[in-house]
Parts: sequence; structure tokens; C-alpha cells
Amino acid sequence: MEQLKQQVFAANMALPAHGLVTYTWGNVSGIDRARQWVVIKPSGVPYAELQPADMVVVNMAGEVVEGALRPSSDTPTHLVLYQQYPQLGGIVHTHSTHATAWAQAGKPIPALGTTHADYFAGDIPCTRGLSAGEVAQAYEHHTGLVIVETLADHEPLHTPGIVVYQHGPFCWGKTPEEAVHNAVVMEEVAKMAWISCGINRDIRPIDEHLMEKHFSRKHGPGAYYGQG
Amino acid sequence: MEQLKQQVFAANMALPAHGLVTYTWGNVSGIDRARQWVVIKPSGVPYAELQPADMVVVNMAGEVVEGALRPSSDTPTHLVLYQQYPQLGGIVHTHSTHATAWAQAGKPIPALGTTHADYFAGDIPCTRGLSAGEVAQAYEHHTGLVIVETLADHEPLHTPGIVVYQHGPFCWGKTPEEAVHNAVVMEEVAKMAWISCGINRDIRPIDEHLMEKHFSRKHGPGAYYGQG
Amino acid sequence: MEQLKQQVFAANMALPAHGLVTYTWGNVSGIDRARQWVVIKPSGVPYAELQPADMVVVNMAGEVVEGALRPSSDTPTHLVLYQQYPQLGGIVHTHSTHATAWAQAGKPIPALGTTHADYFAGDIPCTRGLSAGEVAQAYEHHTGLVIVETLADHEPLHTPGIVVYQHGPFCWGKTPEEAVHNAVVMEEVAKMAWISCGINRDIRPIDEHLMEKHFSRKHGPGAYYGQG
Amino acid sequence: MEQLKQQVFAANMALPAHGLVTYTWGNVSGIDRARQWVVIKPSGVPYAELQPADMVVVNMAGEVVEGALRPSSDTPTHLVLYQQYPQLGGIVHTHSTHATAWAQAGKPIPALGTTHADYFAGDIPCTRGLSAGEVAQAYEHHTGLVIVETLADHEPLHTPGIVVYQHGPFCWGKTPEEAVHNAVVMEEVAKMAWISCGINRDIRPIDEHLMEKHFSRKHGPGAYYGQG
Repeated sequence: MEQLKQQVFAANMALPAHGLVTYTWGNVSGIDRARQWVVIKPSGVPYAELQPADMVVVNMAGEVVEGALRPSSDTPTHLVLYQQYPQLGGIVHTHSTHATAWAQAGKPIPALGTTHADYFAGDIPCTRGLSAGEVAQAYEHHTGLVIVETLADHEPLHTPGIVVYQHGPFCWGKTPEEAVHNAVVMEEVAKMAWISCGINRDIRPIDEHLMEKHFSRKHGPGAYYGQG
Repeated sequence: MEQLKQQVFAANMALPAHGLVTYTWGNVSGIDRARQWVVIKPSGVPYAELQPADMVVVNMAGEVVEGALRPSSDTPTHLVLYQQYPQLGGIVHTHSTHATAWAQAGKPIPALGTTHADYFAGDIPCTRGLSAGEVAQAYEHHTGLVIVETLADHEPLHTPGIVVYQHGPFCWGKTPEEAVHNAVVMEEVAKMAWISCGINRDIRPIDEHLMEKHFSRKHGPGAYYGQG
Repeated sequence: MEQLKQQVFAANMALPAHGLVTYTWGNVSGIDRARQWVVIKPSGVPYAELQPADMVVVNMAGEVVEGALRPSSDTPTHLVLYQQYPQLGGIVHTHSTHATAWAQAGKPIPALGTTHADYFAGDIPCTRGLSAGEVAQAYEHHTGLVIVETLADHEPLHTPGIVVYQHGPFCWGKTPEEAVHNAVVMEEVAKMAWISCGINRDIRPIDEHLMEKHFSRKHGPGAYYGQG
Repeated sequence: MEQLKQQVFAANMALPAHGLVTYTWGNVSGIDRARQWVVIKPSGVPYAELQPADMVVVNMAGEVVEGALRPSSDTPTHLVLYQQYPQLGGIVHTHSTHATAWAQAGKPIPALGTTHADYFAGDIPCTRGLSAGEVAQAYEHHTGLVIVETLADHEPLHTPGIVVYQHGPFCWGKTPEEAVHNAVVMEEVAKMAWISCGINRDIRPIDEHLMEKHFSRKHGPGAYYGQG
């Protein structure tokens, strides 16, 4: 548990280091699947003051089991995703500039090139808006549900992130570190896609065979990128 | 008073640290409501040379009561706002890039997402232009008046900033530090809104129920963001 | 002369510090009006290696009178401007991103707000293109001439910079330091104008009375900005 | 060979220093023409951990002749270019933001100004897309072939880079260091061209005589830029 706290702390600190957060906007969690405990950033604590010991531990019902601080207000969203997808080990939420801009525009981030395809096996979806009722009651829980609804039959590790309509990105991975890595990638491809669409209003999506090739270069049994 | 000078100094120094100012463009003030004295940055002094002791103290008539330097040329604008809104404790003016771009475009910064709604309970208004007469006489005083006119019946702590037509942003808060925080947020949401509108020319404003939810998560009696 | 070399060196080093140059793209000069000698950066020397003693001194005919290195290839442009405008003490040329983008677009940088009007009393002009003949012979000299032609009856200290068509910005001031200051301002207002025009395709130029007010707040007998 | 490894290492480390790469995206190689050996970055190793001794040496058949790590997955692309163009001494591939945006847009980066013309004697071409067959078999080799096909009768040192459709930039030069220099330039002119085209939708290409003048100021027998 101390090791996971350290990992989640380090992953949280990577957010300002990569320019993904302003002030306290953003949070990373990790899960211990054996114990079914989730470690997450405390709510509203500035990164400059954050310590590993500040990480909050909650159970799958969202009850604090360790830690003196209140967990991130987005904790219920994380819990829905961990519950639904046993393959996830880490989740991150940010308001990174360009990914949030697509969320505000209400559009999926289109797969336009190999930078995108190296990590995401298709467009990065944008959820529908939440209804007034979904927002009024258990808002953060409904945010998790609408992500699950939007992913539908996508394999979440092949679509390791989404933008929530008029809100911002959630990303995930097998570890907290990988979740942050995917958040950095999403912000970069969100920026590139914005610029590409400005250059060519009649832009075409990436060729299907090129997308599959690049995704499989890095993922799955035939992967040959990296040191293996 | 020394403590307020220190606060105002620190808030001024936060402007270049957050990338909001070039050279001497920008100023922060704070008010001691008991004494009715305002502490403000001196005019045209580079941030690299600024010292706490350089802060200028003026009374509500704008007369210097402490300090060897001339106060910011924008002092009369600050005084109008402090006079009109007793709930304000700090005011900041910058020429930050994206907020100023909206001011130059003559358009309010539209509320498009939760990043915006966490701080501003609606669009960030843009004032009308000042007339030739208003500019010719007591220009900075009239800048304050047109801000008040534009805010009309808005609660200023729910709309903690505005863009002045063809000029730039003014922000405020309960303290000088909070005013600067709001200026950082305005610059970021101004950038996001520019990008979002470029991605989707038929963009919709944030759903009313989502905006109210996010603003009330951070403000008012039902707030549950942060450590309370 | 050693003092001027030091000033010109410091002004050159300010270019990378302000993010205005990549590699060796850019140069600053200063003039000793009594001796009619111009101090300028050597051609193609990386900023990281530049020393005050590397500054090259040329006379008004462009002949090297001090220094072991070849002067900037843009020296003839600087000389035309010093010859034409006795009020200039420093000149700078860069390829800064946004000012160069306007030069490439072949459009003046429009005066849209007070940030611009604090330094430039109107649009920042864009020259016509040089003819094949003007480029073939004494190209850099003709660049100076087309700047003079474009400025026409503008007071150069009220329009302290210009963009040369399909090339980039030249700025100037009463000293090398002031010239660099104006180059930083031009880059910033070029960026703001690009964003503003993207937000509002029917944007209006700054109101004439607001422009005059802001320019005169900082310049001329009625100036009241700064410590006087 | 140790010297070349050191050069290739330094050139690789220059990529993050210039902001051209995120994580492990990018690679630089250099060639020893006498031995016909190519030194290249290992695949997927973070820059922060990279050491000169990690550089991998391959022969022209792509077989590792020195080094414990697997070479960059893009090695076959580099080999095609070295084979085809004996004048090349270094090659670099990145996913730099703005150059990649043009690649995704499927458009050449237009020559719009002298910044571009100082390095590229015309537009920076964009390749056609690879067919499903070309992607399925020997993908990275076919990437090299389509670059050669697109360059056709261009002198590669006069067009020291290209964007591969829906992928990103490849650049080259007489040395690994020069290749990186050209990659920095391409990213900068890609950004400027994007902004210029946004400012003026009816933008004109750079005048032919101005392009030739600037390219020849820096290249060929009549060059007079720099210290010669």
C-alpha cells in the first residue's frame, strides 16, 4: 500500500511537470486489486505542497480507509471505471488545454495520424451531455456511467481515454504512470488535431491500415517497438 | 499595513511567475477596509526590481499616503471598484494574451465548460467602448465606471473578472492572491474558448445545470470541493 | 565605444532570453552618432558563444573599422535607417514567430487594442515586395529603402517597427535596449491580433480616441505612465 | 566510431532540448560512409536515461553489428535514404507538433517567407499515403521508398526534409547535428505557415527571386551569410 501511495503521488506530480494542470485541477488514482482499495489525490491540495502521505485510500464504496484528508471530488467517477474494467490499474483526470477544448466543442478527437494511432485504436470519443437529473444527484458517479456508456464495446486499453462533454479528459492505463502517459499523449494529439483541421477543413481520417499497423507496432503479440 | 504590502507585493510577483505579464504590464492592489487605504504597485517599475517597500499606499481619493513612488496609472479604476463593491479585497489588471485577444475582439468570453464554471457563473462580460469624452477626461476613472455599468446586477464574486473593450482584463477577489488566481483562470479559459470555437463554429454554451453544479461545487454553502 | 559594444551585446543577448530568435536568426545594432560608427552583431555566430568583444564596428559606408569578424549580412539595411532617421539609436531584426507570420501573410499588423497603442501610434505597416532587380543587386540596401518608402511621413519613433513582406520584422528605438523592447511588444501584439481576428472575423480597429490616449499616456509632453 | 556515437548521442539529446519530442518519439542517426555503418538511437529508450554507449550500430542490411539494444523501429527508413543519397551524413525523425500537423493535413508546407527559404529551396513536400500492401510488409522500408519517390529529382540537401502523409517529418543533413538543425527549422516554419495561412486565406507563395536569393545567401559558391 505504501508503494502504491508512492506511485500515485509520483503520477500526480507528473501532471504539473508535463504542463497538464493549473493549480489543483487534476487527479490521479491507482488501485490495489487484491485489497480492492483505491489510492487517490486529496481534493484541492496544491501540487507544491503535496506529500506521499497525503494520498487518500478509499474502498470501492468510496469510504476513506486511510488518510486524514478528503479524497478528490472526482473519486466516484474513478470508482465506476475501476468497477467496470478490471484491466485498469490507474486513472487520471485533467483539464489540459487542448483536450478540454475538444470536450467543450463537443466533438471526438479524430484519429488523424500515427502519433494518435500509436496509443489510441480509433477516435477518442466524446460523451453525451449529462441530463439535469444526472447532474443533480450523484453527479460524479453519473460521469463514470456516461463514460462506460460511451465506451460501449471498446476495449478500454485500446481507447485509453475519453473526453467528457463540456468538461474534460479522463485517461487510464494498466498503472497510474501509464494513465498519465496516455494523458500526455491525448493532450498532444488534441493539439495536433486542432492545428491539422485548421490547415485542411476537408481533412481525412487516418487510413485504416496505417492505424492498425501503428497500434499493433506498440501493442499486442506482434509488437516490435521498444526493447520488448 | 506592512502585511498587506507584503501580500500585494507577492501577488504582483505572481503575475510574471504565471506568464500573465510582459515587462511592466499589469498591477495588483489590495485594500485595508478598516483604514480605507489601498496598496498598489508603483507605475512602470520592472518586476525584477520590485520590492515590498515600493508598494504605494493611497486613500480612497487616490492621494498617496505612503511610499516614494507614483502609483499605477490604473489606480482610479481600482478605486471605483473598491468603492462600489465592499466585498472585494484585491484587484488585478493584466494584458494577458488570450483574455486581451477577446477584449480586442469585443466579445464576452463564453462559458463553454466546467473549467470556466468552477470560477465564473456565466459568460465573462465585455464592456462597451468608452466615448471620446470619457477617454479625454478622467479616463481611468471612467474605465472603472464602465465595468460597474457592465456588471449591472451581477454579484462581482460570482463574476470575478471582465474584459474591457479594446483594452484587457480586470479581475478581483476577496484577497489580492485570489484576484490573481482568477486572472490565471480567466487567461486559461480564454485560451480554451478560442480553441473550442475554432474547432466547432456552431458551439453551444455550457448546459445551465452543469454550470450551476460546478460553480456551487466550489462556492457557497453546498461547496464540497477542497478540504473545506 | 566599449560601452556601446557592451550595450549592443546585452541587447543581442536579450533576443533569445525573450524567445524572439532561433539559432542565429536576428541581430541588434547601436550607433555612436558623434563618430558615425555603428556597432552590430557578427554574422551567423550562435548566441551561446557570443562575447562583447565579438561585436563588429562599421562606418556609414559599411566598412569594418573594428573587430575580427564579418558583420551581420543585414548591416546595409541598418545603415539606410540610421542615415535616414537621426532620431534612431538602435535597430533590431528578428524572425519572431507571429510578427513573421504577418509579414508572410503580406498584411499590416492592425492596431486592435491598448497594448498595441501603448507603443505604436497606428497599424504596423507591411512593405511591398522587392522587385527581382532590387533583390539581385544590393538586396539588403534595398530592404532599407523599401522600409523608408513604406514609412513615408510616419515619425519612426511613433511607428517603431515594420514588417518586411515575406521576410520579417525590423524594429528600432532611441537605444539598442529600447529597440529590443519594441521587438518584444511587436511579437506580442502580432500574436494577440492573430487570435483576435480568429475570434471575430469582422473585428474593428481600435477607436481613434483610445489609441491617441494610450500612446500619449506613455509618449510626449503629457505622458503620465511610469515614474517620469 | 566512438566519435560518431558521441555525435549521434548529442544530436538525439538535442531533440528534447529543442522541444521537438515527447517521451521517446524521435530518433537521429549518423553514417560512417567508409565502413558503411549507421549509428542510431535504440528503440523506445527515454531520453533521460540515454547514454552514448546505448547507441546501436547497424550495417546497411540493418543487422546490428555493435550494441546491446534493439535499434529504432524506423531504422529501415533511414537505411533507404542513406543508400539512395550518398550526400547525407545524418537523418532525424520526430513527431514535432506543427510539422506533424501538416503531415496529418496531407499538405506540403508552403514556402511563404525567407525563414523557410534560408534552408529549403521550395515547398516541403508531403508524400502520398502508403497502400495497404506497403504498410503490411516492410512498412518502414516502404516509408523510405515513398520519401525517395516524392523527392524525385529534388537535390535532398536543397530540400532537407519532408513530411510523410499522416505520419510526420523526416529531415536530414550532411551531419547528424545539421539534420537536427533542419528539423528545428522545419518545425518553426510549419508553425509560421499555419499562422500565416490563418491570417490570409489567399496567401501567395514567396516570390521566386526572393527565395532563390535567400537560399543562395546561405548555400553554394556565392554564400555570404556567416563567417564563411
